[in-house]
Amino acid sequence: MPTYPERVRILDVSPRDGLQNEKQPVPAAVKIELVHRLQAAGLREIEVTSYVSPKWVPQMADNHEVMAGLQRRPGVRYAVLTPNLKGFEAALADRPDEIVVFGAASEAFSQRNINCSIAQSIERFAPVVEAALQAGIAVRGAMSCTVGCPYEGDVPPERVAMLAGLMKSIGVQRVDVADTIGVGTPLKVQRAIEAAARHYDLDHISAHFHDTYGQALANTLAALQLGVWNVQASVAGLGGCPYAKGATGNVATEDVVYMLHGMGIDTGIDLDALVDTGAWISAQLGRATASRAARALLARRG
Amino acid sequence: MPTYPERVRILDVSPRDGLQNEKQPVPAAVKIELVHRLQAAGLREIEVTSYVSPKWVPQMADNHEVMAGLQRRPGVRYAVLTPNLKGFEAALADRPDEIVVFGAASEAFSQRNINCSIAQSIERFAPVVEAALQAGIAVRGAMSCTVGCPYEGDVPPERVAMLAGLMKSIGVQRVDVADTIGVGTPLKVQRAIEAAARHYDLDHISAHFHDTYGQALANTLAALQLGVWNVQASVAGLGGCPYAKGATGNVATEDVVYMLHGMGIDTGIDLDALVDTGAWISAQLGRATASRAARALLARRG
Repeated sequence: MPTYPERVRILDVSPRDGLQNEKQPVPAAVKIELVHRLQAAGLREIEVTSYVSPKWVPQMADNHEVMAGLQRRPGVRYAVLTPNLKGFEAALADRPDEIVVFGAASEAFSQRNINCSIAQSIERFAPVVEAALQAGIAVRGAMSCTVGCPYEGDVPPERVAMLAGLMKSIGVQRVDVADTIGVGTPLKVQRAIEAAARHYDLDHISAHFHDTYGQALANTLAALQLGVWNVQASVAGLGGCPYAKGATGNVATEDVVYMLHGMGIDTGIDLDALVDTGAWISAQLGRATASRAARALLARRG
Repeated sequence: MPTYPERVRILDVSPRDGLQNEKQPVPAAVKIELVHRLQAAGLREIEVTSYVSPKWVPQMADNHEVMAGLQRRPGVRYAVLTPNLKGFEAALADRPDEIVVFGAASEAFSQRNINCSIAQSIERFAPVVEAALQAGIAVRGAMSCTVGCPYEGDVPPERVAMLAGLMKSIGVQRVDVADTIGVGTPLKVQRAIEAAARHYDLDHISAHFHDTYGQALANTLAALQLGVWNVQASVAGLGGCPYAKGATGNVATEDVVYMLHGMGIDTGIDLDALVDTGAWISAQLGRATASRAARALLARRG
């Protein structure tokens, strides 16, 4: 039988990955309150915003305003996405604790998502990583499509290992193994994680699973069984993928926390406060939560 | 790392557990077509109906009509619920392959769900089991609330072991470990299964998990890791529990099959035909499917 970590650290990506594809503009004040509620619920890592062209991602055009509005708590890590040096320079003034560069394990996805090859994306990231490390900012590498790609289908673990090696070569400190379109199943995500683990130790690998096919929590369990203890999730299951029809959001943070606490694994998170946060942001967006645990817990409150 | 079974046998409970709490009457012809579609998709075990008082479960009052309308396939096991001798005698004429008796691992749930103590329920089942075995009909015991109870909260594994022992003592051939209200998490359902395994070997234990808190697929994975290879599910995630506010249905058969096939585990089921079946019954009931895999696969078809 597998052993489990005693403690899991959850990174909530809802302010960025969860909201970036919202069609209606979400006010900066709502994003700021979301971050404040998440940290009050016990989250210690939050992905806040991104510094990409507002032409491509208009929802994140308020990055400065959101970062400037945060009442930061000691011990909380605020991460932001910076795809290039221009984005990084814009982010620098906002003092993020961590920047995120992102590459795909699938060549076709790289071309369509960030308009360059995998090799070109790494070349583009190299000066960003160097500048961040010199500025004392941590660097994470998000590796998308590590299990499947909407264009190429199955992605072999060798591609993940290659991408992880490239990330390592330019100084990226830790990586996400992301199942961007949620097609993975437990053994496949384990193979992807093992491929990343050729270059990063398990303490520096995060699981990032979308729930499109309902597999995300089972995949999270499979990741924990390998020794992964950094897990990404999105409160209320917010998010989606514009490149995959019918794709849904990240695994809901509430469902992950419910599972972990039920297994006796510490997260430092107050599940009731987290459920309130999910209910609040869902109401702001005018939709039902995608978290089943939240729905059940809210129904039980009556 | 755990090993997995090469093959999993899925019992679809949607015609009975999935439909029994539907408020609107579902025509017998629809139930019959549901069974036909399930068997055409490759299901080899189907829980068809129950022989309980129509006062308590009006939706199952058409049990004779449904059973009489089936075009049976060789190799398919048709199961029905029979809570007492009267129900069993009514079922006998319809030639089920398997009858199901059901008890709770929680005393409070037993009292409220079937109006008697656990011990009394076993006394009531004993002659049913004896008569079934004499008639050459297989006998399964559904054990509800093996992890949690809406009235008592956590249910200790010892209660599950006790109930399994009682089931064994009256001749029940195999048992379901059911998380009726979907509160379980992976280690808790493993403890419940291990408790049942004190009296039944793993070949004779089925996992029956509801998805109320979004945990059902992770719990199914955990059950497989113990060696369980009989799994119950409900197409489109149909079902619920009238005794637990906000409770949702069984784990969706489509989501289970998607996971198993993704892991290289054989089920004998045609996932496309299963998705069609779920879409069809959801349309009949006028609602969206609860299966995420089905939603994603239907969206992909365009």
